[in-house]
Amino acid sequence: MIRPAELIERKRNGEELAAGEISDLVLGYSRGEIPDYQLAAFCMAVYFQGLSGAETHALTAAMIASGETVDLGSALGRKVVDKHSTGGVGDKTSIAVGPIVAACDVPFAKMSGRGLGHTGGTLDKLESIPGFRVELSTEEFVEQVRAIGLAIIGQTADLVPADKQLYALRDVTATVDIASLIASSVMSKKIAGGADVIVLDVKVGDGAFMKTLDEARGLAEAMIDLGRRAGREVVCLLTDMDQPLGRAVGNALEIREAVDTIRGVGPPDFTELVLDASARLLALSDLDVDVEEGRRRAEAVVGDGSAHATYEHWIRAQGGDPGLEALPKAPVVRTVEASTAGTVTRLGAIQIGLAALHLGAGRSTKADEIDHGVGIVCRKKRGDEVEAGETLAEVHARDDASAAEAAADVVAAYEVADNAPPARGIVLETLE
Amino acid sequence: MIRPAELIERKRNGEELAAGEISDLVLGYSRGEIPDYQLAAFCMAVYFQGLSGAETHALTAAMIASGETVDLGSALGRKVVDKHSTGGVGDKTSIAVGPIVAACDVPFAKMSGRGLGHTGGTLDKLESIPGFRVELSTEEFVEQVRAIGLAIIGQTADLVPADKQLYALRDVTATVDIASLIASSVMSKKIAGGADVIVLDVKVGDGAFMKTLDEARGLAEAMIDLGRRAGREVVCLLTDMDQPLGRAVGNALEIREAVDTIRGVGPPDFTELVLDASARLLALSDLDVDVEEGRRRAEAVVGDGSAHATYEHWIRAQGGDPGLEALPKAPVVRTVEASTAGTVTRLGAIQIGLAALHLGAGRSTKADEIDHGVGIVCRKKRGDEVEAGETLAEVHARDDASAAEAAADVVAAYEVADNAPPARGIVLETLE
Repeated sequence: MIRPAELIERKRNGEELAAGEISDLVLGYSRGEIPDYQLAAFCMAVYFQGLSGAETHALTAAMIASGETVDLGSALGRKVVDKHSTGGVGDKTSIAVGPIVAACDVPFAKMSGRGLGHTGGTLDKLESIPGFRVELSTEEFVEQVRAIGLAIIGQTADLVPADKQLYALRDVTATVDIASLIASSVMSKKIAGGADVIVLDVKVGDGAFMKTLDEARGLAEAMIDLGRRAGREVVCLLTDMDQPLGRAVGNALEIREAVDTIRGVGPPDFTELVLDASARLLALSDLDVDVEEGRRRAEAVVGDGSAHATYEHWIRAQGGDPGLEALPKAPVVRTVEASTAGTVTRLGAIQIGLAALHLGAGRSTKADEIDHGVGIVCRKKRGDEVEAGETLAEVHARDDASAAEAAADVVAAYEVADNAPPARGIVLETLE
Repeated sequence: MIRPAELIERKRNGEELAAGEISDLVLGYSRGEIPDYQLAAFCMAVYFQGLSGAETHALTAAMIASGETVDLGSALGRKVVDKHSTGGVGDKTSIAVGPIVAACDVPFAKMSGRGLGHTGGTLDKLESIPGFRVELSTEEFVEQVRAIGLAIIGQTADLVPADKQLYALRDVTATVDIASLIASSVMSKKIAGGADVIVLDVKVGDGAFMKTLDEARGLAEAMIDLGRRAGREVVCLLTDMDQPLGRAVGNALEIREAVDTIRGVGPPDFTELVLDASARLLALSDLDVDVEEGRRRAEAVVGDGSAHATYEHWIRAQGGDPGLEALPKAPVVRTVEASTAGTVTRLGAIQIGLAALHLGAGRSTKADEIDHGVGIVCRKKRGDEVEAGETLAEVHARDDASAAEAAADVVAAYEVADNAPPARGIVLETLE
């Protein structure tokens, strides 16, 4: 019989636990046989003592075993691809990458989560599209990927239930920021979700979980290792999150920007990330192309409109109206101007994210309702030159009061100076 | 409003919390407003980051504030003394010290706990006396100390309820062995119990919680600090627990040995500890004597029979029969003999404690019933010379099978060799 207190003590003392022991702990917890206070103590011991690669793999396997799994590859007879980001400000990448990859004839299937705090969730963004359904059954999900090559839905309750329990517990016990547990949480859902190929986007910087490139590399390596141990092909991009991604932050605003990008008229940094991630997915798919050829094909479907046609097809398949005019709009739009001329040397991602959150674009607690129309559009980004009085950003708000408050936050997020900041690409590093 | 997750995180990160924050956490937990999983994570963070003296004091004060307190000094108009040990094998010290100190006209009042594992509890030992009542009300407790100068009872449920909750949680989350939490648990009960003077006995060695003198010193200093901050006079003895204390291990057997010692015919090591602890208590009492004079008075009440008369008076006051013939006896007594001649170089305290536990003298779980008659008497101790075939120990058992099993354990606990071990007194160090 498993004695949880003994396992906690051994982890606390820095010992490596056996796979079966980790599995007993997680599945016992998932079944309600091991109480949450024992898992809370275990997670805090892990904060200080870490988990080995083998332990993290065992944890991930146990989380997956706590629920149902989907095997898309077998169901479709094709390699299915997926993309996941650790969460940042203005991150609508999957919404653009999915249609581009699918337009290149590679099936793209993603189960996604909701946002909490200053980073938005892909589902919340998609739900700003009138009529769009994120709650598909697993059968509908598989069927849609087979039919049109693309689906992005909410995680079903049956998928990795232990992760939901454990995350809720970690959230209130100061045990969220632990690389092995983050890696295990992400990868258990990706692996259970059934894709064969996964491109991971680990955000690095002030607006992300991982503040430094070193931390991000550690998380990336842990996730790649977990994917490989589960027989998945994984590539990880480490990307900049010191400033928001693209210009738009806020649900409907981000959908517009994703569509612009699918049509070839998006902001440069976001376009670059979308094309790079798409090229990586195509290179790992069953198309038998390299990254350069993948990139050419991604650019081609953007250029000839077929990616946009696939986008419209997809949105309709999930019940939504793909026209941009159908998207909700905020009644108040207020601009923020530069007080002096110079170059934007800083545009704080977390400050913009929090300003959007306070406008109503995100949730402070799980119970909060999202206002899909509100948000911020950053017209100027790091390295851009501005004149005094020129517009830095637009605030899209529900009312004047919240617009004024957000405008003050946006002003504080910008730094304009004489010196130009060093140029920095969106993709900082690629780990294969 | 207190946010427990934030306090956990700050402790996890090595910050010192404010007294009010510690208090909110403990009292919120005690009132059921903060869930046990948050306290479990907090305790594990404390395992790694420790608590400062001020934090430990705040924790102790909050634990005391969770329940009722007794003020014996005010009630009696005298300085009242108490003695506490961290728990060892064969530790019946309070049962001998109480009557000696009371016979010297110093009121002795102790609330005690039950034993778990290989160390017995004072209450369990006293309950081997037919009729003895340990469950007195606080009023009866105070009244008895006033009337006869001596009472040892079980902790009332109202005394430091937060400690009971927290200890139960620590017991199943691998957070028991944390010096600041042990110190706080002990001292909150001692301070709430109302004595003005406390002599602490921290056991050191293989049969104790604290395996090394350094660990024991750390715990002792933490407890002395807590006592002083609460206005108590505290002395701490660090005493040897590499071998059992005295000869007898097991409830009724230990009562016999305590009575022998009160009458001046106890084993040398136990007698020395009893007289030393008594002398320290008298020196801190309102008698205005120094330790040497305290020692002389303690020896005098042992020598003239008044300590034994006080013992009989006390036992009767709590409903018990003080005659040794009334104590339960085990039906099977089996001796263990030395296989070779030599000197006893080792007598493992934990092995003897576990052998007694398996005989039924203690509890493996809280629900276990104790067999008061069984136990082990170690006729030879470290440094004693033995002939081949001479009796090392007696096993007092319920039946032949358990006697045989215990005899094998006892054999393994003894080491007899040619070389004499270095002599070592029972009191290793005294911290004032």
